[in-house]
Amino acid sequence: MNSNNAKAVVLVSGGIDSATCLAIARSQSYACYALSFNYGQRSTSELDGAKKVARAAQVESHKIISVNIGELGGSALTDDSIEVPEKETSGIPVTYVPARNTIFLSYALAWAEVIEASAIYIGVNALDYSGYPDCRPEFIAAFQNLVSLATKTGLEGGNISIETPLINFSKAEIIKSGIKLGVDYSDTVSCYQASEHGVACGKCDSCRFRKKGFADAGVNDPTHYV
Amino acid sequence: MNSNNAKAVVLVSGGIDSATCLAIARSQSYACYALSFNYGQRSTSELDGAKKVARAAQVESHKIISVNIGELGGSALTDDSIEVPEKETSGIPVTYVPARNTIFLSYALAWAEVIEASAIYIGVNALDYSGYPDCRPEFIAAFQNLVSLATKTGLEGGNISIETPLINFSKAEIIKSGIKLGVDYSDTVSCYQASEHGVACGKCDSCRFRKKGFADAGVNDPTHYV
Repeated sequence: MNSNNAKAVVLVSGGIDSATCLAIARSQSYACYALSFNYGQRSTSELDGAKKVARAAQVESHKIISVNIGELGGSALTDDSIEVPEKETSGIPVTYVPARNTIFLSYALAWAEVIEASAIYIGVNALDYSGYPDCRPEFIAAFQNLVSLATKTGLEGGNISIETPLINFSKAEIIKSGIKLGVDYSDTVSCYQASEHGVACGKCDSCRFRKKGFADAGVNDPTHYV
Repeated sequence: MNSNNAKAVVLVSGGIDSATCLAIARSQSYACYALSFNYGQRSTSELDGAKKVARAAQVESHKIISVNIGELGGSALTDDSIEVPEKETSGIPVTYVPARNTIFLSYALAWAEVIEASAIYIGVNALDYSGYPDCRPEFIAAFQNLVSLATKTGLEGGNISIETPLINFSKAEIIKSGIKLGVDYSDTVSCYQASEHGVACGKCDSCRFRKKGFADAGVNDPTHYV
């Protein structure tokens, strides 16, 4: 909970986790400022999902920032020459985008400082996830530590809190929480290679976690799969 | 020093500090990958400076990434409605760009991971500087801590070292070091509001530090001032 009129920057990718995270920030009475990124991801229908999710949550403002991570290469999500795996793999998968959450949180931090927000919400999850290093609590703690040292706000004794309400939730718990808060999951897109119209492959990591989450939660999955 | 063929990403703004920092990375036998940002700064001649500096240092590659920090507002360097001060001010000046070095280092980290660089060089300086929080050793230490947790490289036991060779140098010491290493400072641009052709105002913080640095070093300042 927070004092009246407190602002939060909420990272909104257009998937299940960020839609739920936004609903939680709203339920905690924050005035929400949604932030999305166009980073050369394969699936731009993700961004259409982000727009629908932000609109449905009646955010104060929604910014979509173009970031040229793709130009630096190195991930199946931004580099067409690397295939998205359609079977489970071990270790950190090729869909890992180097330093993605560090970059996203850095922009969120900049915006939070400008609008004097007291929190940044990010829907990372360390349980039903793909093994990305920058989804772990240790990473979030290190970024929180950076915040106080990186900013004018921190230097002047203020704080911007990094909030990760989903970090210990299973995908099923995330979906159940969202349903309670009225999230319409038909707005969301999870697939790493969804078609222009949001039709999901049903095979990539992200689709597999989504399907299993809905099944485990006993909730109907509104996704259109190929 | 480093093992043969080690790579370093070097942040190159086009000013004195980054030109010197690049020369130092080269003198330590790194193969250098220069990274600059077009972030809506007032002075785009800074980027012309960065190109000349990178070319003179014979870097392996030079990337200029567009980052839309200006879209988030809040700084005299990116927002035309805020004037660049031409007299000394107290506290953190309006030229402070929220979370700038956090964003720049995040991109450098992403590139370093992709090319398997072992170091990132940044020419921050905590002595003759403008009071920006993200130029302090504490900030760099916090980012170094983040690196090991944010990346696949870190998770796999590797390291990317954040190098700040100038952090305790005076501006005069920076200039003297650069001269020894053959830096041509006529390539560099410091002014926050330099003209298209690189003519400097001579009045902003950055110009004042530059002039004093050359005077203290007893070296002729090649800058064209208004």
